[in-house]
Amino acid sequence: MTDGLPMAVPDPALPSRVRIHEVGPRDGLQNEKTVVPVEVKAEFIRRLAAAGLTTVEATSFVRPEWVPQLADAEQLMPMLDGVPARLPVLVPNRRGLDRALALGVREIAVFASVTESFAKANLNRTVDESLEMFAPVVSTAREAGATVRGYLSMCFGDPWEGAVPVERVTRVARRLLDLGCDELSLGDTIGVATPGHVTAVLAALGAAGVPAERLAVHFHDTYGQALANTLAALRYGVTTVDASAGGLGGCPYAKSATGNLATEDLLWMLNGLGIDTGVDLGLLTATSVWMAERLGRPSPSRTVRALSPQES
Amino acid sequence: MTDGLPMAVPDPALPSRVRIHEVGPRDGLQNEKTVVPVEVKAEFIRRLAAAGLTTVEATSFVRPEWVPQLADAEQLMPMLDGVPARLPVLVPNRRGLDRALALGVREIAVFASVTESFAKANLNRTVDESLEMFAPVVSTAREAGATVRGYLSMCFGDPWEGAVPVERVTRVARRLLDLGCDELSLGDTIGVATPGHVTAVLAALGAAGVPAERLAVHFHDTYGQALANTLAALRYGVTTVDASAGGLGGCPYAKSATGNLATEDLLWMLNGLGIDTGVDLGLLTATSVWMAERLGRPSPSRTVRALSPQES
Repeated sequence: MTDGLPMAVPDPALPSRVRIHEVGPRDGLQNEKTVVPVEVKAEFIRRLAAAGLTTVEATSFVRPEWVPQLADAEQLMPMLDGVPARLPVLVPNRRGLDRALALGVREIAVFASVTESFAKANLNRTVDESLEMFAPVVSTAREAGATVRGYLSMCFGDPWEGAVPVERVTRVARRLLDLGCDELSLGDTIGVATPGHVTAVLAALGAAGVPAERLAVHFHDTYGQALANTLAALRYGVTTVDASAGGLGGCPYAKSATGNLATEDLLWMLNGLGIDTGVDLGLLTATSVWMAERLGRPSPSRTVRALSPQES
Repeated sequence: MTDGLPMAVPDPALPSRVRIHEVGPRDGLQNEKTVVPVEVKAEFIRRLAAAGLTTVEATSFVRPEWVPQLADAEQLMPMLDGVPARLPVLVPNRRGLDRALALGVREIAVFASVTESFAKANLNRTVDESLEMFAPVVSTAREAGATVRGYLSMCFGDPWEGAVPVERVTRVARRLLDLGCDELSLGDTIGVATPGHVTAVLAALGAAGVPAERLAVHFHDTYGQALANTLAALRYGVTTVDASAGGLGGCPYAKSATGNLATEDLLWMLNGLGIDTGVDLGLLTATSVWMAERLGRPSPSRTVRALSPQES
């Protein structure tokens, strides 16, 4: 039924090309109950690259006991030799960086919090202490020739603090750039943002000297807002969008669906807007269905479910 | 966790007020497997009005054997006396209109198709034959002092025909206005539209003499696009948006989720944009949870699920 759909109708106010930063293997699998065998992860990442994704965040070099889902980073990375995509990894600290660099990784990400509450909960540090911890990580990575992405979590709302003042975002963003981050990803970790708020944060960052070219957006679909927020970010000039294949990380049966924006839902919109991504929706959907079978439950992506009806 | 969320950040390019045309009791329940007792329907509509919804499409005067879910229209309408909201009803033909007028209904809707395939499948007529059938319905309704909404289904894509040329939409829209319709609701019946396509259809209608003030948009979330499309329509100047409380009409466990845009997901965005609707999100969510309990399954609305975790 989807021959010729969606109809491509470009909007001249939007970018003509977008890079999708695929986070399914890392942010997605990290939040799934099921621990996936390393061979399946490697195959998943190979399939994502074959579908045309040029950036696939592969894993996290966190302490294995903290995130058992990603405890196999050392095994996984050598299995990805020759995969035709950028394969950044998350590193929580200097020890994680050293493990990643030893394996030849040359693209890393650090995960900062905009709010004190989440910095305390996630990193057991104040925001400033966590930035101090990241300083040698970023500088060492860059000395080793690696590029560095800085994640900013809780940019719009926080479960303990409620709405997050825009000034907090610009302050942490400036600090991360000053540390040497190449790109910043603005995370709506609890999914509460709306399009005007997105535009306001981007405008404040612009006024603080952080141009759209250095920014990515990372929306969660907890309240169904992720795609509308993405549209607002594209309109502002952002051209890098984080998404998770099949909506991995959010369970369709969970009491609250807290997953990432599904890459397929994003791609349906971008295809309809005539925005080039290089990604094949059919191959990507097939990959997400394959992964859903490995996880033993259907994909929460509406596009995946519409294109490839699965048993539930 | 949602105190102060979403943070209200108005966008001057968007309307300051939106009227939500609630379709849950009609379009929603019509597409649910479970047949709801008439007393529950009446209570549902009363609760929706109490939550602040000013327009609640109550039922359809279709032949009872066609849509068993709505076979109780004659019983329902008298139970709604005194409900403080506009309560339009769908009428498929002259017989349905007479039944509605006899009960004192003064606001009706007719359901036209933009495509020949769906006109044939749904009405067993060509598009032109269906418009001829509606002509006396609309004129009689107006002579009786009723206002008339014209639904245009399959405005963006059609399961048999694929992408729908914009000219088809403008042609049917003009005809419906010429028949005497007061308002037109543009339906993306299979949920395939994307924001640029929405803007293109609205612009073509504007060029054909159909202003945004006469239009409503009616999006389905089959591919997760409904809210992004709504944002595009608001940016164009549309101020009437159809939505279904709790996403009624789409089952979260269905093989393909084909439901209407959930009113709560819409309201989260509108609240975040500082757009006035008069609707209380807490009361509305409680109503959808109550209705989901009557239907024996959780609401597919992401906002309902986030605000009010339900057993699944």
